[in-house]
Amino acid sequence: MGRQGPAPLSGFPELLPGQRMVETQIIDGLRRAFELHGFAPIETRAVEPIERLTGGVELDKEIYAVSRWAEANDAAAEASLGLRFDLTVPFARYVLENAGKLDFPFRRYQIQKCWRGERPQAGRYREFTQADIDIVAKDQLAFHYDVEVATVMAQALTDLPVPSLRLQINNRKLLQGFLIGIGAADPPAALRVIDKLDKLSAGVVEQLLRTEAGLSDKQAEACLQLASIHAADTSFVDRVNSLGVNEQLLDEGLAELAAVLEGCAGIAGARVSVEADLRIARGLDYYTGTVFETRMTGHDALGSICSGGRYDSLASDGRVTYPGVGISLGVSRLLVPLFAEGGLQASRSVPSAVLVAMPLEESRPSCAGVAQALRRRGIATEVAPAPDKYGKQLRFAHRRGIPYVWFPPLEPGGGHEVKDIRSGSQIPADPDTWLPPEVDLNPHIVPKPNVSE
Amino acid sequence: MGRQGPAPLSGFPELLPGQRMVETQIIDGLRRAFELHGFAPIETRAVEPIERLTGGVELDKEIYAVSRWAEANDAAAEASLGLRFDLTVPFARYVLENAGKLDFPFRRYQIQKCWRGERPQAGRYREFTQADIDIVAKDQLAFHYDVEVATVMAQALTDLPVPSLRLQINNRKLLQGFLIGIGAADPPAALRVIDKLDKLSAGVVEQLLRTEAGLSDKQAEACLQLASIHAADTSFVDRVNSLGVNEQLLDEGLAELAAVLEGCAGIAGARVSVEADLRIARGLDYYTGTVFETRMTGHDALGSICSGGRYDSLASDGRVTYPGVGISLGVSRLLVPLFAEGGLQASRSVPSAVLVAMPLEESRPSCAGVAQALRRRGIATEVAPAPDKYGKQLRFAHRRGIPYVWFPPLEPGGGHEVKDIRSGSQIPADPDTWLPPEVDLNPHIVPKPNVSE
Repeated sequence: MGRQGPAPLSGFPELLPGQRMVETQIIDGLRRAFELHGFAPIETRAVEPIERLTGGVELDKEIYAVSRWAEANDAAAEASLGLRFDLTVPFARYVLENAGKLDFPFRRYQIQKCWRGERPQAGRYREFTQADIDIVAKDQLAFHYDVEVATVMAQALTDLPVPSLRLQINNRKLLQGFLIGIGAADPPAALRVIDKLDKLSAGVVEQLLRTEAGLSDKQAEACLQLASIHAADTSFVDRVNSLGVNEQLLDEGLAELAAVLEGCAGIAGARVSVEADLRIARGLDYYTGTVFETRMTGHDALGSICSGGRYDSLASDGRVTYPGVGISLGVSRLLVPLFAEGGLQASRSVPSAVLVAMPLEESRPSCAGVAQALRRRGIATEVAPAPDKYGKQLRFAHRRGIPYVWFPPLEPGGGHEVKDIRSGSQIPADPDTWLPPEVDLNPHIVPKPNVSE
Repeated sequence: MGRQGPAPLSGFPELLPGQRMVETQIIDGLRRAFELHGFAPIETRAVEPIERLTGGVELDKEIYAVSRWAEANDAAAEASLGLRFDLTVPFARYVLENAGKLDFPFRRYQIQKCWRGERPQAGRYREFTQADIDIVAKDQLAFHYDVEVATVMAQALTDLPVPSLRLQINNRKLLQGFLIGIGAADPPAALRVIDKLDKLSAGVVEQLLRTEAGLSDKQAEACLQLASIHAADTSFVDRVNSLGVNEQLLDEGLAELAAVLEGCAGIAGARVSVEADLRIARGLDYYTGTVFETRMTGHDALGSICSGGRYDSLASDGRVTYPGVGISLGVSRLLVPLFAEGGLQASRSVPSAVLVAMPLEESRPSCAGVAQALRRRGIATEVAPAPDKYGKQLRFAHRRGIPYVWFPPLEPGGGHEVKDIRSGSQIPADPDTWLPPEVDLNPHIVPKPNVSE
C-alpha cells in the first residue's frame, strides 16, 4: 500500500481498533466508578448558541462555528451555533433548562467529545474526549461535596493503567485570603500571574507580580513563599500560618483544603498521590473555592490532565443560582500520548476469543452453530472467512491475536477440539461447556509502564 | 420555577438522566452483541472535508459546515469541514486511511452521533445517534457476510425493550435483474420510483413508472406485482418465478435473498420478525446487492429505524477497492419517540441502590465508610446530603427511586439496619455482607409495551 489514501487531519486523533478497545475499557471503568457513587449519566447536544459559549470566557478564537452548508452565506439563517469546548458550560445550561425536572443536589457524569480550534500541540487536540463529574445544588451547595468529587475522581484514577498521577489541590479562598491579608491591591491580577508558575521561572513570576499585579518586593516574595508550599498531609497549614498572614478568608480556605486532603487520605496510593499544592490557581474566572489539577509522571509537558473546582455562580437564570463543584478528566489528553508512544495496548486487536476453523464451505452452518453455542456463554467468537488450509486459518487468528482456534469434527459423530495458538496445545472440547481462562475471555489492557515512566 | 431558563433547540433532543440510563443500557447491550460476534469498536472524528461529504450523495443542503469562529469570514482559512451525516462515509474514509494497519476482512462497530440540518419532523433529528456494523474486505467480500450482518443485527434487536420490529430484506440484483428481464429502458429511474411505494399509493407509483421511468403499462404492472411480494420464508422465490421473467441477475438476487432469509430463520421470534419484502429499494445509489430496512410496530411514521446493505465500490482509492456490507440502527429514531410517549423508563433516576442515612454531621466519615464497604461489593451507594430528620432523608431517597435506606448505629457498638422503602420492611444488616436482590442492584428498563403497541 502506498500513501494514496486520504491524509489525517491535524488535531483530530483517531484510534486503531485495538486502541479504541483500550479506550472503551477505560471509559467503562470510569462510568462504573462514577455510578457506584450515585452519579447519573447525561449527554448534552454538541452545539450551543454562540453567545452562551463566548459569555465571559476568553476562548472566542478557538470556538468552532456551525452553520447549514447551504445557508452559510445567508444572513437570515438560523441563530448562530458553535461546538461546545468543554462539558461545564453545556451542563450549566442543561441544569437551568431542566431545573424543574431534576432533584437537587444533582450529581451527574458526562463523557463526551469537545472541540477547540486551537493550534495542535502536545496534549492539545481540536477534538477530544472529556469525562466530567459534577454536583450542583439549588441556592447552596454544602462543602463536603468538594471532598466528595475529589475522592470519587481520585478513586476512579486509581484503577487506570497509566503512569502514576499526582492530584494537586488548592483553594481560591486560601489564595485570595492570603493576597488580601498581605494587602495586595489587585488580587485577581496576582492570581493570574501565580497561575503562570508552571511555565515561567520563579524569578520572572516575582517580577511580574510587581509589574503586572502592583505588589511590593515583600508582597511578591511572600506570594512565592506561599506558592512553594506543597504537602501530602495537612502540615501545609502550619507552614502557611508561619508566614504570619492573618485573614479570615485565608483561614477558611486553609480549613477547606485540609478537609479535602483528609478526605482523600484513604485513596492515595502508589498509582495516585494527592497533595495540597499552593501554586495551583486555575485560569478560569468562575472558580470560587477548591481547585484541582493533575499531573502524570513523566508527562509534564501535557499540563494538567484532570482539572476542576468549585463554581458558586456559573449556573444562574438571574433568579435562582445553582452552585456546583466538579472535576474533568481529559481522556484524550491522557491516552493519545500513551498510544503514540506505544505505552498502552490491547492484548488483541479484535474482541474475539475464538476463531471457529472451517473444514469445508458446506460446514459453514455447523460452524456457525458452534460459534452461537460459545457466544451464548459469553465467549466472543467468529467463524473463519473461508475453508482455507488450516495453516492459513491459524494465521488469520494469529494476525488478530485471537488466542483460540476451534476445530469442529471432520465427520459426523467426531469430536470437537480447541487449540491455544500461543502454546500449540490442542485438546478435545465441547462447545456447550468449554470455557477459556478468565484472562483470555475479553481483550485486556497491556500497560507498558517502563516505556512511560 | 417559571420558564425563564434557556429554551431547547428544535431537532437536538436531550435526555433526562433516567432516560439516558435507559439509552446507555441499550447501547451497552448492542456493544455486547456486536463484540460477541467479533466486531471491534472504532470511532471517527466528527468532521470530514466537505467534498468527501458531498461526493455523489444528494444531501448537500443538510450538511452542517464547521469553521473557526474567528475565521468564519476569512477566505484563506483552513480547508472546509463539515459534520458527518452518517457513519458509513467516515468509515469508508477511515478504511482507506488505515488500510495498511487493518486486517481484512475487517469487522467493526461504531456508535456515534451524526448531524443533518434537515427540517425536524417525526423520527428526524438534527443530532442523532447511529449504531453501525460493517464488514469490509480487500478486492472481494464473500456473500456470506451479507447473511452475517443481518443475523447479528437481528440478534441484537431481539433483546431491545421496544415494540416488535420487522426486518425487511431485499436485493438490488433481484430488482435490477427483474427490470432488465422485463426490458425496462432505465432501471435506475424505475428503482427510484419503486422506492416511493412507502409514501405514495400503488396507483400513483404505477403512473410514475410510466411517466418517469418510461415503462409500458404491462411493465409497470409487472413491477407492482413484484413489489407486492413479501414473505417470511423462501416462498417468495416461486412467486417471483411465476411472474415469468428470465434473467441471470434476477436468479442471482433471488438466491442471495433466499440465503439471507434462511440465515436469519433461527433468530426471528416474537420481538423481531424477518421477511423478504420486494418493495424495499433504498434511496442511496451505492448499494449493489442485499438491502435492509426495519419498521417498528405502531410507529410506521418513523420510517425505517435500521437500514443498510451491500456496497461493493464505496471505499476505493482508485487502485484498491474495499467492498463492504453493513447495517445501521437509528438509536435516536428508535428511542426518542418512545421516551416522548412515556413508553420506556428506568426503574429509578439515579444509579444508587442505597442511600446511607446520616444521624449527625459528625457521623459523615463513618457513613462514608459504610458506603465504601457497599461499593466495594458493587452496590451503588450515596450518602445523605445532610443530617436531616429521617423522614426527610427517606423522602430524598423516595424522590429518586433509591430502593434502600441504610441506618448506621446511633451509638458505638450498635447494629446497622437497612430499610426497603417500598415495603417498609427494615432488617439488621452488615455493610460487609448485605446484598440487595439482583433486580435492585442496578436500575433496569421498565418497558410499557401497552403504551406503544
